Amino acid sequence: MADLARMSINQATTREQHSLAQAITAYTQAGVPGISIWRDKLAACGLDEAVRMVNDHGLRISGLCRAGQFPAADAATRQANLDENRAAIDEAAALGAECLIVVAGGLPDGSKDLPGARQMIRDGLGSLLPHARAAGVAMAIEPLHPMYAGDRCAINTLSQALDLCDDLGDGVGVAVDVYHLWWDPHLQAQIKRAGERILAFHVCDWLLPTTDLLLDRGMMGDGVIDIPQIRDWVERTGYGGLIEVEIFSAENWWKRPGDEVIRTCLERFKSNV
Amino acid sequence: MADLARMSINQATTREQHSLAQAITAYTQAGVPGISIWRDKLAACGLDEAVRMVNDHGLRISGLCRAGQFPAADAATRQANLDENRAAIDEAAALGAECLIVVAGGLPDGSKDLPGARQMIRDGLGSLLPHARAAGVAMAIEPLHPMYAGDRCAINTLSQALDLCDDLGDGVGVAVDVYHLWWDPHLQAQIKRAGERILAFHVCDWLLPTTDLLLDRGMMGDGVIDIPQIRDWVERTGYGGLIEVEIFSAENWWKRPGDEVIRTCLERFKSNV
Repeated sequence: MADLARMSINQATTREQHSLAQAITAYTQAGVPGISIWRDKLAACGLDEAVRMVNDHGLRISGLCRAGQFPAADAATRQANLDENRAAIDEAAALGAECLIVVAGGLPDGSKDLPGARQMIRDGLGSLLPHARAAGVAMAIEPLHPMYAGDRCAINTLSQALDLCDDLGDGVGVAVDVYHLWWDPHLQAQIKRAGERILAFHVCDWLLPTTDLLLDRGMMGDGVIDIPQIRDWVERTGYGGLIEVEIFSAENWWKRPGDEVIRTCLERFKSNV
Repeated sequence: MADLARMSINQATTREQHSLAQAITAYTQAGVPGISIWRDKLAACGLDEAVRMVNDHGLRISGLCRAGQFPAADAATRQANLDENRAAIDEAAALGAECLIVVAGGLPDGSKDLPGARQMIRDGLGSLLPHARAAGVAMAIEPLHPMYAGDRCAINTLSQALDLCDDLGDGVGVAVDVYHLWWDPHLQAQIKRAGERILAFHVCDWLLPTTDLLLDRGMMGDGVIDIPQIRDWVERTGYGGLIEVEIFSAENWWKRPGDEVIRTCLERFKSNV
């Protein structure tokens, strides 16, 4: 059984119900000790106010979502993305976030050059790293499910993410999300390889059937992922950080009252993580 | 440019428009030299009549769809699936199909044990192989995209399929479908590894956005897959077999006149394969 003292909720789980201030209040009142914050919600709240609130509530921040989006068709756009990423690093530092989630980006508009996109990701991360290191912000490369290779993230296995870490050196690690990685026959071996480079661990579930590629993630226990098995593998590396519930669910959980969603997350965290 | 003399169309591409007899007539009239046949359509036509028609038209059969579905919750169901698979082998032999496509199956109902399902796949294939070898039918394991790991096929990379081939020996090879494999950073290396074990090569395209996990495949050229690059890798192995267009498209191509679909397949085969 997962320890509630290690629970975090990604605020996207109640994206439609809560502003950042509302999410901080609601999660804290429910006894959830961690939150993961999205930058659009952060901007609406204001960074100073957000920092004040998380400190007042003693919340831990399992991650800031997100940096990335490195590939682009032209150099000016790639540079603008890097500038945006530096702003994300500064926000993560101000918040004391335990990592900055990196969703690397997919193919540039009009391109079919996946190796080229992957090279842009490597180069972009390399350019950012000095700023992240100076700010003391750990960047967590999150491999996304292969169904997002074209439009969201061309880093699609933990092996690929770790190859990037090997290449880039200190200051970068990985986020392990069961939704993206559960199918991978090499997952156990790659989690072991990751070792102390695991900076975040995300849970939800894979529904059968899945009716939407992006917004039909399931509550833990409603799908087919053996979450406790993967948690065990992660914890055998020594990972003792927060375990973050992250559910995008346009037709189900986003339509329910926020308190019901949080209560269900807590119950399922105990029974199915 | 791909050679039209090597073109095949999977009859699922005009599933809503054509019976098997209609597909054979329409593809032949359009000058397409190959077809891939589905067993439900074959049953509706009758095996003898189908054999007569393909012989009369001199059509090549790039594959029979399909064997597989090995994992099941109980031994009786697994045995029934094997019996069904033997019938598929006999049909492939009668038709002179160039391979029998194997879609291995996903998790048994209620199971979260993906390694267990993969073991059932290995065992099921092993049980079938003597019958397939005796019938002279080559079984083509088709790795399916990781988004199908739960409900359709727990063999999700070419590497996994080739490991199975290594394990099982003669009589089994692979089907390379760009839709399932295009995202894999190891694809080039694994195609090279496959060598003469490539028994089928399937093309369509990955649309951005993709609106349905199963039935929103794109016509070649409408998506982001670098098909000529993958075809080049396949042909460097010495593969000179048919190149099969297979498009499941409930909201687009299945709603258009069959002749328009076939004509577009021919045009795009020339321009985008």
